[in-house]
Amino acid sequence: MSKTMKAIAKTSPGQGAELIQAPIPRPQAGEVLVKVKVSAICGTDVHIYQWDQWAQSRVKPPLIFGHEFCGDVVELGSGVKGVSVGDFVSVETHFTCGVCRFCRTGRGHICERVEIVGVDRNGCFAEYVTVPYENLWVWNHDIDPEIAAIQDPYGNAVHTALACDLVGADVLITGVGPIGLAAIPISKKAGAQRVICTDISPYRLQLAEKLGADLVINVREESMIEAISNFTDGKGVDVVLEMSGSETAINDAFTCLAKGGTASLLGIPSEPITLDLADAIVFKGATVHGINGRKMFETWYQGQALLQGGLDLTPIITHRLPLERIDEGMELMKTGQCGKVIIYPNGSDL
Amino acid sequence: MSKTMKAIAKTSPGQGAELIQAPIPRPQAGEVLVKVKVSAICGTDVHIYQWDQWAQSRVKPPLIFGHEFCGDVVELGSGVKGVSVGDFVSVETHFTCGVCRFCRTGRGHICERVEIVGVDRNGCFAEYVTVPYENLWVWNHDIDPEIAAIQDPYGNAVHTALACDLVGADVLITGVGPIGLAAIPISKKAGAQRVICTDISPYRLQLAEKLGADLVINVREESMIEAISNFTDGKGVDVVLEMSGSETAINDAFTCLAKGGTASLLGIPSEPITLDLADAIVFKGATVHGINGRKMFETWYQGQALLQGGLDLTPIITHRLPLERIDEGMELMKTGQCGKVIIYPNGSDL
Amino acid sequence: MSKTMKAIAKTSPGQGAELIQAPIPRPQAGEVLVKVKVSAICGTDVHIYQWDQWAQSRVKPPLIFGHEFCGDVVELGSGVKGVSVGDFVSVETHFTCGVCRFCRTGRGHICERVEIVGVDRNGCFAEYVTVPYENLWVWNHDIDPEIAAIQDPYGNAVHTALACDLVGADVLITGVGPIGLAAIPISKKAGAQRVICTDISPYRLQLAEKLGADLVINVREESMIEAISNFTDGKGVDVVLEMSGSETAINDAFTCLAKGGTASLLGIPSEPITLDLADAIVFKGATVHGINGRKMFETWYQGQALLQGGLDLTPIITHRLPLERIDEGMELMKTGQCGKVIIYPNGSDL
Amino acid sequence: MSKTMKAIAKTSPGQGAELIQAPIPRPQAGEVLVKVKVSAICGTDVHIYQWDQWAQSRVKPPLIFGHEFCGDVVELGSGVKGVSVGDFVSVETHFTCGVCRFCRTGRGHICERVEIVGVDRNGCFAEYVTVPYENLWVWNHDIDPEIAAIQDPYGNAVHTALACDLVGADVLITGVGPIGLAAIPISKKAGAQRVICTDISPYRLQLAEKLGADLVINVREESMIEAISNFTDGKGVDVVLEMSGSETAINDAFTCLAKGGTASLLGIPSEPITLDLADAIVFKGATVHGINGRKMFETWYQGQALLQGGLDLTPIITHRLPLERIDEGMELMKTGQCGKVIIYPNGSDL
Repeated sequence: MSKTMKAIAKTSPGQGAELIQAPIPRPQAGEVLVKVKVSAICGTDVHIYQWDQWAQSRVKPPLIFGHEFCGDVVELGSGVKGVSVGDFVSVETHFTCGVCRFCRTGRGHICERVEIVGVDRNGCFAEYVTVPYENLWVWNHDIDPEIAAIQDPYGNAVHTALACDLVGADVLITGVGPIGLAAIPISKKAGAQRVICTDISPYRLQLAEKLGADLVINVREESMIEAISNFTDGKGVDVVLEMSGSETAINDAFTCLAKGGTASLLGIPSEPITLDLADAIVFKGATVHGINGRKMFETWYQGQALLQGGLDLTPIITHRLPLERIDEGMELMKTGQCGKVIIYPNGSDL
Repeated sequence: MSKTMKAIAKTSPGQGAELIQAPIPRPQAGEVLVKVKVSAICGTDVHIYQWDQWAQSRVKPPLIFGHEFCGDVVELGSGVKGVSVGDFVSVETHFTCGVCRFCRTGRGHICERVEIVGVDRNGCFAEYVTVPYENLWVWNHDIDPEIAAIQDPYGNAVHTALACDLVGADVLITGVGPIGLAAIPISKKAGAQRVICTDISPYRLQLAEKLGADLVINVREESMIEAISNFTDGKGVDVVLEMSGSETAINDAFTCLAKGGTASLLGIPSEPITLDLADAIVFKGATVHGINGRKMFETWYQGQALLQGGLDLTPIITHRLPLERIDEGMELMKTGQCGKVIIYPNGSDL
Repeated sequence: MSKTMKAIAKTSPGQGAELIQAPIPRPQAGEVLVKVKVSAICGTDVHIYQWDQWAQSRVKPPLIFGHEFCGDVVELGSGVKGVSVGDFVSVETHFTCGVCRFCRTGRGHICERVEIVGVDRNGCFAEYVTVPYENLWVWNHDIDPEIAAIQDPYGNAVHTALACDLVGADVLITGVGPIGLAAIPISKKAGAQRVICTDISPYRLQLAEKLGADLVINVREESMIEAISNFTDGKGVDVVLEMSGSETAINDAFTCLAKGGTASLLGIPSEPITLDLADAIVFKGATVHGINGRKMFETWYQGQALLQGGLDLTPIITHRLPLERIDEGMELMKTGQCGKVIIYPNGSDL
Repeated sequence: MSKTMKAIAKTSPGQGAELIQAPIPRPQAGEVLVKVKVSAICGTDVHIYQWDQWAQSRVKPPLIFGHEFCGDVVELGSGVKGVSVGDFVSVETHFTCGVCRFCRTGRGHICERVEIVGVDRNGCFAEYVTVPYENLWVWNHDIDPEIAAIQDPYGNAVHTALACDLVGADVLITGVGPIGLAAIPISKKAGAQRVICTDISPYRLQLAEKLGADLVINVREESMIEAISNFTDGKGVDVVLEMSGSETAINDAFTCLAKGGTASLLGIPSEPITLDLADAIVFKGATVHGINGRKMFETWYQGQALLQGGLDLTPIITHRLPLERIDEGMELMKTGQCGKVIIYPNGSDL
């Protein structure tokens, strides 16, 4: 193994990112070294790339970013359990403390001291990355590496959708970026009767149809409330999976939610929103779940079982680029003219 | 039985109410005639009395109002089951259709066509009232009639509190009107570790202490967030029972809610509120329940069992008046210098 | 309408049944008269037909039996709500009291005073039958009448299966009579990864494959425990749906249940069984649900939604007979060489 | 620190135990050394002491046994997190693998490769013991060391009781050894209306009354079924907490369980039992939970909160002995004339 590797890093505060040669990291106690096979770009990466307010407050350059990936285990630190050199793995990107009251009660996804790979420590837009062994998901069956690379957003979708009782439900997904798109076949597999999707991007609404949406609504062109009322004979939807973070979408989605319904909120409004709490939640007897990350590792077991049961995520992946051309991926993400953009650290794997 | 009775009615649109002589009603098929023993004033009655916007849009005079009461069954209409003349009863005030999808799935509390006694049809500020037999709760053990009269707000509190897992929980109750006050001993009986109450009325906060609150916070005088952070060593509360409808209280309560916590919302903001959804619910992985009415009749069984197990509601009742002096009760309610105000249709029972 | 109708009745204690002419019944208050379109034979009907010990202790001749059916509403008694003459209906066969604590808490399926049509009062092996309006399920979309006729066993299967968390689960169904068969597509639709079925009838195991079973095991020919261990790589199944009532099947199924798994028990052992409770349930941390009837009407809504979502029950129906040839159906049922046997009261509909 | 310590060991196969001098163990990576302050005798210890069939098949001498204890952390191995020298700790006795699918989904209590301290490796009938840091429960408030020593059986009781919905419930506890006794105040604190206890030991039934039982039944002297039917007006109990492992108790308890009720099974029948599954579980629509160990660490948080809320376990402790007189404790346990027997490794602490 050579001593250095290619990586995409935010080397100093400011827009953009740099292709660098960095030393290959060594696994500490409890860590493994993973040779990255496939990465993918997340919206969070675009925030870091653009160096927006959130990124400025959270990220400390220099940092190799990127957190969606899969790869091969090539070296083990001391004290590692349950994984061997040569294993093909995906990685839970939330590194948890293991000893807070959330970690100790099966709720590591809301750990008090979580550290996110590619945000708080070096990530996967690189040929190699180190991760705690507890965060590895070892695949013991054949899996498409591109699918293995997007387990983080897929897991968000699994967590969000399965927080609700989907059997026989009419489901509304507001916002069909890659996570919202993944929620379509998940909902269907888990028993949803019909899935309705909203967005403002015709490109993504077309992808939603490809993934099995029964109705797609471009909220720039028609009223979500009217369209859903017509489609459900005035009954409304039983479940809302909120993936947009948009104030308007959230208000309209609650209007469409039937009495006694359930809403799972994953989307992050960038600022406080105005909401008619009385009509949206109280009178309706609605239940609302805030969703953060993935349940470790219940969500992963559920997600894996659905994949083994035939769930097909491939239509979500629309673009593939070598590490060197990651800028193009960032631009694509900004336009919304894409599903998931895959990055190959070693372009020759493409 | 004489042919007429005393009653308090809204005889025409506008403020106030009138003491009238009205014909004693006759039970229709499926109904029973109840001789009212004890009534109580609800905040809703004050809205009707004051003829506010909500009342103007909902209430159609002439109407005998009032909906919290107990009494004796004195006559049965045809087809009545499960109740006999002479039974002492409380009444579930939401009269449901019985055939909508909510009624047919044990969720009558969100019935599509609910009718509320004393709001949509003649109520209990009278010597007699008719109600569907399905709405009766027959007491088969000794119960203080004043406690039997306030089962509607008590049931609201039971429903709100028991929607959360209370065992070992630190519980915050925002707003200690009669429902919030009732939620204190309910939470304690159901295993809460500590109960914290907030309000702006020193009178009601004193009642809260009497009912067992471990900490009371007058939010006019100190910061809810700071006080709770100190009291819980920064951990926050596990459960919020929102009874105030106040935008500030709701925002602060969500700030105080620990990660993974649960909030039950019963209070009704009078207009849309601004809420930091991301921090309040999403990142936290919180669960939120909108609460409407009482589960029919799960809430009643739970409430009864807690009373039989020794739960004491009597400190909630602070004033007692004959029907003729109901105006005084309405004034008291406006000031907040009271807990529950009890009305005796037949003043000589006082 | 003529004054009499054809019916199959147990006219006196003893084996068999008689084709009689009976007066067309009239709906009482709260009842409707249904013109039966399609009936089906249940195992319970065979018990009555054969006049076994259970039947002798429960059934009081003369009785028109049969309880699985659909038909058209032709007359309404007084006080009927939510249904009109001309509606096409299925019928929940458990007539409940409406006032016991189970009925009042959304658990009518375990009503204290349940009465079963065709067992405790005249049933549907007839041209007409009367039922309480509360028991009607009005179809408001096109449904195959033969499917509408088997909602009782289908609902048993829905209730049994949906008591468990099926998403991603490996499911074992022990016993594939019509209810077990229905549980196959239900489990699949609700997210099960793989469905394994056991029985002793090659005929029924073939039907199970037709309905989507991933593995069928004839327990007369091979070991359930070994076959499932192989199929699941030693992991066992996550969910057991017990439909056989067989002591051996129950013991073996619990052996196959993974730690932390869930078993739903619908099958009725004819006498007490010997069970290794420690290994079957305690050490394993298993959860067990006893299942009785159908949740009224949650199960019906779920079942309907699954049907509208494309669930196909038609392979379950294997034979069709006119009322006059019901004896042939009873014989078929005894052999197990059938799925569901459909009866047409008016043979010309066949 | 001297180099050797006093300990009670099974030095070779056969009855009894020996007081030995053993080397003080050193903590490995991830382990801590605890100086034992208080121990307690569990029924399992009696099995090992008596060298019964189970002990012969599981225990490999030489072994220092004992697993219920508390103490002070005196030395840390490498890689230890969340605990410091000087911390006062209790210990979760199930040492889990951390990487099986149960451990990874918050269900370590059913870990595939669990190791029990004092059974599978050296335990706490000694002055010192080593344990993995993940198994420590650090007390950060004042706790009676004798109560800290019995968190294992207390946690069993918390796990068993809180698996059921206790608010307003009538609860039957069959078998009031120390775990059953602990379940009494737990059930009460968590909202149970009335608690009924059965046993065959008058000594223990008296303790049950002291701990708050509303009715105690000596099943050697009267019929459980009759006594409970009388006490509950024929309604039966809503919850069964089975702590006896007795076939008769289990059958009678299920007879007493109301329809729709829940049974939590912790008791371990020594061999398969005969059970009328149809009447006990199926027709009744009952739910049954098998209980194993304690949820790590949800049960601990719940148990701690209840203790902080004032739950009093002290009446459970009836005897105190120095390590040297442990034989007397074993004899007491065999007779059932005791609650919990406490052992002081350093008799001078007594």
